[in-house]
Amino acid sequence: MPHPSISNYFISLNEAKSLSQSIKIPIEEEEVNIENSYNRILSKDVYSLVNDPPFDNSSMDGYAVIFSDTISATQENPIELEIIDFISAGHPPIKKLTSGSAAKIMTGAPIPEGADSIIMIEKTKEVDGKVLLYCPSFPNYIRLKGENLTKNELILSKGTFLTPHNIGLLATSGHSKISVIKKLKISIISTGDELIPPGLEIKKGQIYESNSYVLEGLIKEIGHIPIRKKAIPDSIEKLRIELNNAALESDLIITSGGVSMGDLDIVRKLMETEGEILFWRIKIKPGSPPLFGLWGETPLFGLPGNPVSSSVVFQMLINPWLKYITNSKGPKEKIIKAKLTEEIKNKKDFLVFPRVLVENNEEGLIAYTKTHQGSGNLRSLTTHNGIAIIYPHIKYEINSQIDVLLL
Amino acid sequence: MPHPSISNYFISLNEAKSLSQSIKIPIEEEEVNIENSYNRILSKDVYSLVNDPPFDNSSMDGYAVIFSDTISATQENPIELEIIDFISAGHPPIKKLTSGSAAKIMTGAPIPEGADSIIMIEKTKEVDGKVLLYCPSFPNYIRLKGENLTKNELILSKGTFLTPHNIGLLATSGHSKISVIKKLKISIISTGDELIPPGLEIKKGQIYESNSYVLEGLIKEIGHIPIRKKAIPDSIEKLRIELNNAALESDLIITSGGVSMGDLDIVRKLMETEGEILFWRIKIKPGSPPLFGLWGETPLFGLPGNPVSSSVVFQMLINPWLKYITNSKGPKEKIIKAKLTEEIKNKKDFLVFPRVLVENNEEGLIAYTKTHQGSGNLRSLTTHNGIAIIYPHIKYEINSQIDVLLL
Repeated sequence: MPHPSISNYFISLNEAKSLSQSIKIPIEEEEVNIENSYNRILSKDVYSLVNDPPFDNSSMDGYAVIFSDTISATQENPIELEIIDFISAGHPPIKKLTSGSAAKIMTGAPIPEGADSIIMIEKTKEVDGKVLLYCPSFPNYIRLKGENLTKNELILSKGTFLTPHNIGLLATSGHSKISVIKKLKISIISTGDELIPPGLEIKKGQIYESNSYVLEGLIKEIGHIPIRKKAIPDSIEKLRIELNNAALESDLIITSGGVSMGDLDIVRKLMETEGEILFWRIKIKPGSPPLFGLWGETPLFGLPGNPVSSSVVFQMLINPWLKYITNSKGPKEKIIKAKLTEEIKNKKDFLVFPRVLVENNEEGLIAYTKTHQGSGNLRSLTTHNGIAIIYPHIKYEINSQIDVLLL
Repeated sequence: MPHPSISNYFISLNEAKSLSQSIKIPIEEEEVNIENSYNRILSKDVYSLVNDPPFDNSSMDGYAVIFSDTISATQENPIELEIIDFISAGHPPIKKLTSGSAAKIMTGAPIPEGADSIIMIEKTKEVDGKVLLYCPSFPNYIRLKGENLTKNELILSKGTFLTPHNIGLLATSGHSKISVIKKLKISIISTGDELIPPGLEIKKGQIYESNSYVLEGLIKEIGHIPIRKKAIPDSIEKLRIELNNAALESDLIITSGGVSMGDLDIVRKLMETEGEILFWRIKIKPGSPPLFGLWGETPLFGLPGNPVSSSVVFQMLINPWLKYITNSKGPKEKIIKAKLTEEIKNKKDFLVFPRVLVENNEEGLIAYTKTHQGSGNLRSLTTHNGIAIIYPHIKYEINSQIDVLLL
């Protein structure tokens, strides 16, 4: 039974995304050296400072020649050319090639003026300052200036998540520093009298707190800064103090637990009375209890305490929010299609996220569930390698193709 | 033409893997707090210290009751039970339930002795210390002790790569510290007179060095420590000094460039004369020139200078070596099957790795090439999202299923 002040109760995931994305926070940029840009988000479009390659160059070790000189070369009747130069990578050639001459050239070295093709070293023999060619030369052994990148061309757009290959492309195009989104600081606060940190001795009624560790890792994975707090008991007063502290030091607050219908659901209660709730509960399974709102000016996602729910809601709701507000296109989710080898029940109006194992068989990818799917069973996220996305109003039978987010 | 001392010349990728994996290095372990274990590799099997859940508990906010008391409850004829206790998570119940009584119970709280089922709060009404039940209770709202994890059960085996969910499982099972493989230090040395670092002004014949940045990122991704050196020119003397330095401070050396047939291929030359080469050249495309050997006692992979080749060989040869010697099962490669929408030529005896774009269409995943596949075109690794694995002796036509390693 929702509190009368909460108008958006039990809404769809898409509605929840829109509502949360109506709240924005200031996003800052900073300049970093590219070697420190791993897993960062570009805050500006990046254009190439150079052509790549910057000049025509050889893709082989061999001789730069004039193709028309070489047409008639055969094993029996080799062509002889005079070697007038030795060109290695990094050293611009000085001499111009004319008919009857060749320049020995190393991979990556600039093509000398006059030459229009390369013969690889294996098809030649060097004798007394001359080279014998046993077949015609190949024009396609020249890599043309700008064939990969053109100077001033857009190479990576604003919002690109910087993978190792993207960083390499920044280097290739001449950038040693780039502008990125400043990492967001995200506080994680688990709540519940039953929670104790791992390492302590467990007493009757207690469980080891794990959600903050999972969330910490998920935040690291997408390049932001987790601030993992010690779990707090079910106390409105302690929660208020923690939220105030978190609002001072972070851009976003994530709580875990205390958002359900119960008498001790302190996150919901405190947000109802002293915060502002934009929505409560979402039509997804697992993970229906979340709320979203503002604590002062700081956005707050209240996640359910069940470990599977907590992770699923992070991935399906918070991660999209973080991407949206930072205008980030990555990390790209790997959503693939796989063939179900068992029936999966959907749930009217609900998006359902069973954990599935995706495997290759001869015809393609298959997906099935392996361990029990209880929302308390964190292990279901380690023994499976995907989260299936089961839409309402579709019948899922054996051999149906389903969408799976690879973990 | 291989040097006479190199017996393993132009071998298959599998042979190259076996030969490189015959060289081992000392692997050390260290203990870390689980919050610092992200992307680390477990060096020991881990067993659960507790049952999870540690005790039978309620998955709902509601009332713990005796099922047989509730069987006849209907909307018209509710059952009335006396509320004898309020049990919240973290607080073990003291009172025993007997017929005719109920205990108000919060999600996660231990089931009191005597109770065998739960009725959710929404199906009840509380009046003057009594609760009215409008339907029978549900035995499946009790999460049973140990239903997720059993005490002393193996939960994560040696070699597990620690993802956020694995770290959560360590917490759930009571571990605050665990033993992991000490990160390996890996030196990266690019070679070539033509290489300058991004940020400097480019002169004729020069290119920006990018391979060391890509390799640095790929090493970070799998949880080891890259030591990125400044590129060195084509000088045997400078290379010898760098290799000696690198051997002192790292567990593995990766060079880039200088391994081909040319006169200036200094890595190959120096390894031939002063190191030990276990193999040279592999039947893969791109990436055929690599060598592997020992510089003193330090293993050395000599990668080709072409940026695509360098990255592909890292992923196909060095990454498997690192996993093998650290006995690591992750990070798990995401190899999927997709349907080709174009013909791809294979190459006799060669494994070919075209970069492809994998997309979902209605029937499943499709794959096709988008930009040119030159081994100098690093961009082909950023505009595509997968590396196809094209085996020799198989005909790949439109609609063939191919294996793709997702990037």
